[in-house]
Amino acid sequence: MLAEVITIGDELLIGQVIDTNSAFIAKALNKIGVSVYQITSIQDDKSHILKAFQEAESRVDIIIITGGLGPTKDDITKKTIADYFNDTLVKDLSVLENIKKLWKPYAIESLLQTNLNQAYVPSQATVLMNVLGTAPGMWIEKNDKVFISLPGVPYEMKALIEGQVIPKIKQKFRCPFILHKTLLVFGLGESALAERIEAWEDNLPKHIKLAYLPDLGRMRLRLSVKGFDEKKLKAEVQEQIELLLPLIKEEFFGFEEGNTSIEGIIAEQLTKLGKTLAVAESFTGGKIAESFTKNAGASAFFKGSVVSYATQSKIEVLGVSERLINEKSVVSGQVAEAMAVRVLNLFNADYAIATTGNAGPSKGDSDEEVGSVFIAIASKYKVFSEKFNLGNHRLKVINKGANKAFELLLKEILKN
Amino acid sequence: MLAEVITIGDELLIGQVIDTNSAFIAKALNKIGVSVYQITSIQDDKSHILKAFQEAESRVDIIIITGGLGPTKDDITKKTIADYFNDTLVKDLSVLENIKKLWKPYAIESLLQTNLNQAYVPSQATVLMNVLGTAPGMWIEKNDKVFISLPGVPYEMKALIEGQVIPKIKQKFRCPFILHKTLLVFGLGESALAERIEAWEDNLPKHIKLAYLPDLGRMRLRLSVKGFDEKKLKAEVQEQIELLLPLIKEEFFGFEEGNTSIEGIIAEQLTKLGKTLAVAESFTGGKIAESFTKNAGASAFFKGSVVSYATQSKIEVLGVSERLINEKSVVSGQVAEAMAVRVLNLFNADYAIATTGNAGPSKGDSDEEVGSVFIAIASKYKVFSEKFNLGNHRLKVINKGANKAFELLLKEILKN
Repeated sequence: MLAEVITIGDELLIGQVIDTNSAFIAKALNKIGVSVYQITSIQDDKSHILKAFQEAESRVDIIIITGGLGPTKDDITKKTIADYFNDTLVKDLSVLENIKKLWKPYAIESLLQTNLNQAYVPSQATVLMNVLGTAPGMWIEKNDKVFISLPGVPYEMKALIEGQVIPKIKQKFRCPFILHKTLLVFGLGESALAERIEAWEDNLPKHIKLAYLPDLGRMRLRLSVKGFDEKKLKAEVQEQIELLLPLIKEEFFGFEEGNTSIEGIIAEQLTKLGKTLAVAESFTGGKIAESFTKNAGASAFFKGSVVSYATQSKIEVLGVSERLINEKSVVSGQVAEAMAVRVLNLFNADYAIATTGNAGPSKGDSDEEVGSVFIAIASKYKVFSEKFNLGNHRLKVINKGANKAFELLLKEILKN
Repeated sequence: MLAEVITIGDELLIGQVIDTNSAFIAKALNKIGVSVYQITSIQDDKSHILKAFQEAESRVDIIIITGGLGPTKDDITKKTIADYFNDTLVKDLSVLENIKKLWKPYAIESLLQTNLNQAYVPSQATVLMNVLGTAPGMWIEKNDKVFISLPGVPYEMKALIEGQVIPKIKQKFRCPFILHKTLLVFGLGESALAERIEAWEDNLPKHIKLAYLPDLGRMRLRLSVKGFDEKKLKAEVQEQIELLLPLIKEEFFGFEEGNTSIEGIIAEQLTKLGKTLAVAESFTGGKIAESFTKNAGASAFFKGSVVSYATQSKIEVLGVSERLINEKSVVSGQVAEAMAVRVLNLFNADYAIATTGNAGPSKGDSDEEVGSVFIAIASKYKVFSEKFNLGNHRLKVINKGANKAFELLLKEILKN
């Protein structure tokens, strides 16, 4: 089963926006056994869009189009689709209903004709209701081919892909069973991991594919298999995992399920244990708090965070001793540990993370090199810290630092 | 002058890697007046690559190809290019020299035949020396068309584009002048903005293109123009902007230059004024702090943040009155204002943002609906709050809430 993705929008062709939609769609299709043959980005230009549709239709079975569905004059995808199918636009009452519902929090006078026009769809289209926005998704079949048009706004597109497009494709086409099993591994680099499991990898059956996915200090190890005998494939992968696990006993933290991340595993563990967490962040600047709170259910375990960015705030808000900072430097294991203990008490939490360091690009309030950081973990009975050097790329230092903190905390939680 | 970008690699088609190269290349080409007609991502597959070359050649003058130049067996771009031009690969001594130089820090025995093979290029190609890696860039002219092949590793590709490709294109082709001017507009939805400026848009000269780029409560409005008379084009765009600005007086916040965001404008303003900022975040959970601290230079104005996620922490860490919370509810304008004032004092800052609300998916510690949020801004002499309803999609509520907070703060800063 083959598909293509066509992303429409001048902003892509002038480099103002990076196309992240295609990778998301390709990944979702891959999971259900549909391979993507080509990804094409084109301008909001009628003749070019028509030509791209025609070419894609000659090559593949499923064509997914994103973008150009907005209410303004530069958005022409919907009219062009109608032209492509010699169709006309008709008002869809369910879409109209949805638009009015989305408008409920606002004054109804502000609902403009351009918004109401969003309710028009090609008469042959099956509407894929977009409850997050006014532009509906559309599904149009022609002979044995399917055209699917989605809004370009990423979270609207994602909801439609997951909630409607993937289930409908699975229903219409007989897709092979694809199994990806991804192991989360921490504390081993790519080469070290590869060397450790080399003999196992050499003996892996040819039809089981292995991929190493490094990500800022974490590794994901993915086994993939594809075919029609689901039961047999599952058993084969399980057998290989049982051979693999003893080799990475210390470094294996769990399986990635859906969008599970290490933050997700921590959230799950803390919620299960009825324990709570507080954070004191310096160089990570809120990144750790944000990583936990962006997921639903955070209030079950996440008490809060103090982003003590300025040195003075470590003293005044967290209550770290000024003498300790002067004696040991603000970027030191001792200060990290003091921050962790202080924030643990401040929020009356069971566990605390603290970070201090310099994310760069220039040196801050300490003599430590850019990228030198200390991370501390405190619990009711214990506090410890570790030093890391995370390079000199600011965003990388912040993200790697957050990942290291998650790793240390999870190890500590799992010990108990 | 038209160009196309072709990115080659299986990882793009399974969604494992997001193609960021195309946007970089498109932006660089645009700056020198070359328009990108299409971006195409394809697999490491010979017949598909040949077909993509042929199609692109029929449409445009410049074809830029990235990826597939690695030393391993799955990288076939170079051989395929030679086939496309009925050419053979010959050893290039300057490339060989470069490879040996790159290998200097390592044991020479580790230099494998596969690495040495990187020195072979099609005989018609002009080498674009890649001092950052072993895969050379290649420039091949055919009739009046140019094919440019570059490694897919982003920093190698970027160095070649900036250092060699752009200067060579400017030398070979007479490129028009392209001007993009992007206005940042806050507090108006796409449709409302379109209606407000409809008469102006209808009178816009045909050769000036207008695009609406919505982004969670912010809008970017882009005017684009292209031609050979730089002075005249600049004057025309300026004239249109002067007609437009009075229509969006309240909502216009500045021009986008490079990667300017509203956080960037706030950072710039506060640094210029020598003023500081503190934040108390509930439903935004660290997002606001993280948005400021991820950029270098944050320590000049950003004092810190308290993520008071649990209600108890609003009382114990921030010192908001328990009675106020009980009387007015934790999600209320009064509590938001109290949080802002408390955090302003706690960090001794000049401005403070506070957020309280419910990002969903289920109701929290208050009776307010999911998506109902209050945002407060405090300065030394003033505190106020506003209520917003931001829908029921958790991440959207968080991101829109942060944007609304930036908007309110910037308005307040600009008043003074």
